[in-house]
Amino acid sequence: MKILVINAGSSSLKYQLFEMDGTQVLCSGIVERIGLENGIITHKTFDAEGNATKTKKELPIPNHNVGLTEVVGLLTDADNGVIQNTDDIQAVGHRVVHGGEFFSETMVITEEVEAKIKECFQLAPLHNPANLQGIEDCKAIFTKATQVAVFDTAFHQTMPGKAFRYAVPTELYEKHGVRVYGMHGTSHKYVSKAAIDHLGLAGKDSKIITVHLGNGCSMSAVRNGECIDTSMGFSPLDGLMMGTRSGDIDPAVVFYLMDKLNMKSEEVYDLLNKKSGMLGVTGDSDMRDIEDRFAAGDEVAILATHMYTYRIKKYIGAYMAALNGADAICFTAGVGENDHGIRHYSSIELEGLGIELDAEKNKNLRASDIEEISTPSSKVKVLIVPTNEELEIAQQTLAVLN
Amino acid sequence: MKILVINAGSSSLKYQLFEMDGTQVLCSGIVERIGLENGIITHKTFDAEGNATKTKKELPIPNHNVGLTEVVGLLTDADNGVIQNTDDIQAVGHRVVHGGEFFSETMVITEEVEAKIKECFQLAPLHNPANLQGIEDCKAIFTKATQVAVFDTAFHQTMPGKAFRYAVPTELYEKHGVRVYGMHGTSHKYVSKAAIDHLGLAGKDSKIITVHLGNGCSMSAVRNGECIDTSMGFSPLDGLMMGTRSGDIDPAVVFYLMDKLNMKSEEVYDLLNKKSGMLGVTGDSDMRDIEDRFAAGDEVAILATHMYTYRIKKYIGAYMAALNGADAICFTAGVGENDHGIRHYSSIELEGLGIELDAEKNKNLRASDIEEISTPSSKVKVLIVPTNEELEIAQQTLAVLN
Repeated sequence: MKILVINAGSSSLKYQLFEMDGTQVLCSGIVERIGLENGIITHKTFDAEGNATKTKKELPIPNHNVGLTEVVGLLTDADNGVIQNTDDIQAVGHRVVHGGEFFSETMVITEEVEAKIKECFQLAPLHNPANLQGIEDCKAIFTKATQVAVFDTAFHQTMPGKAFRYAVPTELYEKHGVRVYGMHGTSHKYVSKAAIDHLGLAGKDSKIITVHLGNGCSMSAVRNGECIDTSMGFSPLDGLMMGTRSGDIDPAVVFYLMDKLNMKSEEVYDLLNKKSGMLGVTGDSDMRDIEDRFAAGDEVAILATHMYTYRIKKYIGAYMAALNGADAICFTAGVGENDHGIRHYSSIELEGLGIELDAEKNKNLRASDIEEISTPSSKVKVLIVPTNEELEIAQQTLAVLN
Repeated sequence: MKILVINAGSSSLKYQLFEMDGTQVLCSGIVERIGLENGIITHKTFDAEGNATKTKKELPIPNHNVGLTEVVGLLTDADNGVIQNTDDIQAVGHRVVHGGEFFSETMVITEEVEAKIKECFQLAPLHNPANLQGIEDCKAIFTKATQVAVFDTAFHQTMPGKAFRYAVPTELYEKHGVRVYGMHGTSHKYVSKAAIDHLGLAGKDSKIITVHLGNGCSMSAVRNGECIDTSMGFSPLDGLMMGTRSGDIDPAVVFYLMDKLNMKSEEVYDLLNKKSGMLGVTGDSDMRDIEDRFAAGDEVAILATHMYTYRIKKYIGAYMAALNGADAICFTAGVGENDHGIRHYSSIELEGLGIELDAEKNKNLRASDIEEISTPSSKVKVLIVPTNEELEIAQQTLAVLN
């Protein structure tokens, strides 16, 4: 069975075609600069050994539909295609960023589901409209396929009230949905599941802390496979320090900037979302540049790295308190999988909590699969777990079909 | 030597007169409703055995100076006074809420110190002007006394940059002082010092977590007697859930309330400071009322109690990570010293972190001095430590005089 995974952003569209349930990737690609004259499509097909053939096209891509039609052309290409026609695809799994409180699991898309995705527009104004556009376009093109929605918030819907409620008037929760939703749920689910399998804890009591560090960063506390807490809150601004986002900050700062510096609320919002985080402190948002500066002894880069990792460390402690211990701490996503310095400073000097990092392993291992980077005696394992959100979406899509 | 301790608020003035360094309290009292026609002064004198004689006066108190003059009348009263005249008081120790980054220790008040207290007005607009007013009035009345300022923020000035900096553009810190300051420093200092003495850790490596739970609530991580992190941030709004304050919340909620509910920034500020916390969730802000509702099975009170204590628990974990373990967790202030239910839910199910509460001891002990409420085998001690901010101010005042 062939399942196409779609991640439609406001000006981009990522896709991956899986042969299920063997987890073979037939092709993957990205359509960029949708809405512009100089759109780009980068498309890769893979043979049985995983060798890639790459195709790149530049053309005007006025909207998602044109982009998707071009992708279909590449999928069905006479020479280099991977399917005969669109009917070969039996299901399309869509990443949908926000499912509010409506969805705690993956859903076959119906009119009702679409209506709820629309109701969540105000909670994810940049993402959900694009996600829904992708769904509409796929319905029109892959007419025989079942359309499935996999929500980034769904995994976090198991959180108890004490974790997801804010201490604001109850009416703001009940009438206006002000609560913790969390993000990156597909990744936290995939990674915690992989760690549970790796540790032989399937079906047993398990306590996993997942640390997803990419452009956006979030952590989750996972008890017996269910999320009980997460660091991103009402929006993707909260929690850990990120590339350009502030993460946790006293909300009084917002008022101070408006009152004392005469900033408009949109300016403060923009500042906290796009000009803060590592960028705000160092002037750089790419962790690799900051790492180079750190190595060269740049004090600002050193401070920023310690700010970034100290917050991770504090969330590790907080989630160990929430879980009453931990079996493993799992680093994942671009920074978490590749930046040994960040992992190092996030997990050293935690022996008092039963966490012993093996600094050499951490530095030298390149993770293509799960790797343990704690010492053999470490009570809490420290793992690198490569995430695969597309595969998780494909597997969940398959699961709802069966 | 007689030292008067003054805590001047916007419409109240608390005072306590100590015979030092014996720590004997000669009298204490509070002037309330300053600025109103129906002002009240409640004054207590104590004999050597600590027996109190209470005096209550109702009169118009148009300003602090009038209030203080009335207090002097009571102090020097022919029948019931504790001093002959104002010259008997050798020093006045003033509580000053905000010392910004200027003051990391207690200061003899000079013109320069007063100027800096003024510079901090914008960081504590409700408190610092009243504190300075109290200083001016005392200078005029106790002309022979040395005036001393004890800052609520001073204890937290030892925090490292990774803990006190927010992930916002560096300029906001350097030019506008946007950083973590913390509050309740006098209490955190007094309590951590008392715990260190109690545990016999003076001069040794020590890791103390202080949990100050009153109307305002904050926690600190204290390493070898020095604060390394605290939960209140730029303002007293941040951190733990409080009586009427939200504590930690995604700053994006501020923008959401302004954009979607058309609230003005002042309304949102007011909502987060005065209508949130326990009041916002339950409709009550007095912990004793909430406790009664909890006992009666009221679901909202149960939820709010778990929200309140779950945050404390997560900060315990976070600070154990920051400290790489802990020797003791110390509950203090009105709620922390008296509410066994709050202590219970904040510190149970933490055996995975070496914390074993003795539920019976916790429930039955009434703390007049330091009490241990953990089991004998608990690696981390759980303590009740009665705070005494006035005594701490008197002792620090004495220390700068010597």
